[in-house]
Amino acid sequence: MGSERFSGVFVPALTPFKADLTPDRERFVAHCRWLLGQGADGLAAFGTTSEANSMSVEERMELLEALVEAGIPASKMMPGTGACSITDSIKLTKQAVALGCGGVLMLPPFYYKGVTDEGLFANFSEIIQQVGSSDLQVYLYHIPPQAVTPISLKLIEMLVKEYPDTVVGLKDSSGDWSNTEAVIKNFPGFTVFPGSETFLLQGLRAGGAGCITATGNINPAGIRKVYENWQTDEADALQARITEVRMTIQAYPLIPAMKRMVEHFHKEPGWEQTRPPLGVLSAEKTAGLLTDLEKVGFELAPRS
Amino acid sequence: MGSERFSGVFVPALTPFKADLTPDRERFVAHCRWLLGQGADGLAAFGTTSEANSMSVEERMELLEALVEAGIPASKMMPGTGACSITDSIKLTKQAVALGCGGVLMLPPFYYKGVTDEGLFANFSEIIQQVGSSDLQVYLYHIPPQAVTPISLKLIEMLVKEYPDTVVGLKDSSGDWSNTEAVIKNFPGFTVFPGSETFLLQGLRAGGAGCITATGNINPAGIRKVYENWQTDEADALQARITEVRMTIQAYPLIPAMKRMVEHFHKEPGWEQTRPPLGVLSAEKTAGLLTDLEKVGFELAPRS
Repeated sequence: MGSERFSGVFVPALTPFKADLTPDRERFVAHCRWLLGQGADGLAAFGTTSEANSMSVEERMELLEALVEAGIPASKMMPGTGACSITDSIKLTKQAVALGCGGVLMLPPFYYKGVTDEGLFANFSEIIQQVGSSDLQVYLYHIPPQAVTPISLKLIEMLVKEYPDTVVGLKDSSGDWSNTEAVIKNFPGFTVFPGSETFLLQGLRAGGAGCITATGNINPAGIRKVYENWQTDEADALQARITEVRMTIQAYPLIPAMKRMVEHFHKEPGWEQTRPPLGVLSAEKTAGLLTDLEKVGFELAPRS
Repeated sequence: MGSERFSGVFVPALTPFKADLTPDRERFVAHCRWLLGQGADGLAAFGTTSEANSMSVEERMELLEALVEAGIPASKMMPGTGACSITDSIKLTKQAVALGCGGVLMLPPFYYKGVTDEGLFANFSEIIQQVGSSDLQVYLYHIPPQAVTPISLKLIEMLVKEYPDTVVGLKDSSGDWSNTEAVIKNFPGFTVFPGSETFLLQGLRAGGAGCITATGNINPAGIRKVYENWQTDEADALQARITEVRMTIQAYPLIPAMKRMVEHFHKEPGWEQTRPPLGVLSAEKTAGLLTDLEKVGFELAPRS
């Protein structure tokens, strides 16, 4: 495991919660299986979209174990394992490596703001050394809108220099194309995933590896189609189509909106539940979202 | 427990780490005992200064247990128990209540940015209900420079209305006096602690309860003296003195600087260790800090 680089469409799988706010293991497995069946190349479970930071370390570990037990290939998994505490990051990363995950997506420690690149380097370095496995493949997670703490070009340089076989890529959720482009250009061989399918075609043309995108939860097949056909004449039209769907959904609070879509299209009541501080999309807004989706002719593919 | 409100000088105790980055239980107990011996009214352990978010839930629970086992009165403790995950917040808060802590200091969930007051209310509400104890006394922790997620006046109003006997106060680490003043004025009977001793006298004159301050780790006696004498003619001069010391220290990275001071004045090598992403103050900067402290005539009181 771990020596092959990821590419294609990765989905930060939504986490279903029961009415008592505990994670719904069965629905989670079913949703992940559906995503792969729809053409997703892999699962970046326990990302921002997954409400991973709203769960305990134990809850995350149990869900990851559930996926593996259900026969979903660990080689297609890039679980989020970065936390504020190195203790937690090490524990989560060790489990991912032990289960044979093809990589991990690592947030920087995000509580303290304005920390130095040297401090962040020390954080990643400590985790890598304590995990101590040549199977470990780290994809850095740059998401300044939520983490506020960025992964700078200087930090990538420091990490790639020290750990060339371990720190192998980055997810860029900055929404800033010039940053994505700079990472691709500055680090040849580095595996770069834009954090939204709106940059998928642009990213592939520049040398990116695909995308890791929230809305992969509801439009995996459409997004995968762009990936498959990016060198064809159809590419721009296909990209315009998935961008239209994305824009329609992200006019609403993204995570609550997607959970409502899963609930509605798959007829699985209860899927709308989030964990605080995220809310549930109101019935009124849900109706608006469904009308908007109808206008652009979008429907979810069924579960089977 | 829990029915009496806190007041006075509370210290977010620094957490000592060993060279392998594990928490140093013995030194932590000794430091907390010294703080109370120097006149601190209580301990707000596991705050920002304590690097609490750089530790796992288990590490925090073990350290709190160590304090109680060492005979330090739980009634004087206001441990930090707010986390990104409600599961973690509930676990930490339940332990604090079970041990008899006089209150808890609760961060909002701080990963997602731009969440609604209703979402934050749901977070605190879920924790309070799942802890389900009339002994629970919650002090909200408003620290926008780190958490980015603020505790707004509207949120305080919603919480105080729903849980008048449980949500009893706030620590304001915004550094914005107009906000501290607004909380004191808008919520009579609410226990408000400025998050720095620079606002101690101003806060007491406006109806504040004291302060919860990082630099209480190194100047507890001086800060306590302002609290004791705030209604005397000496008050302004005493306040000017502690402000001068605070300004001298915070010209350096605050947590690393204080750890170096503990190491130097108490002659306890190793205390300078932080957990990444925080760094260790360099020898050069430490020398500068010590020179600056000498200029203002400041020394730490010995351990015993």
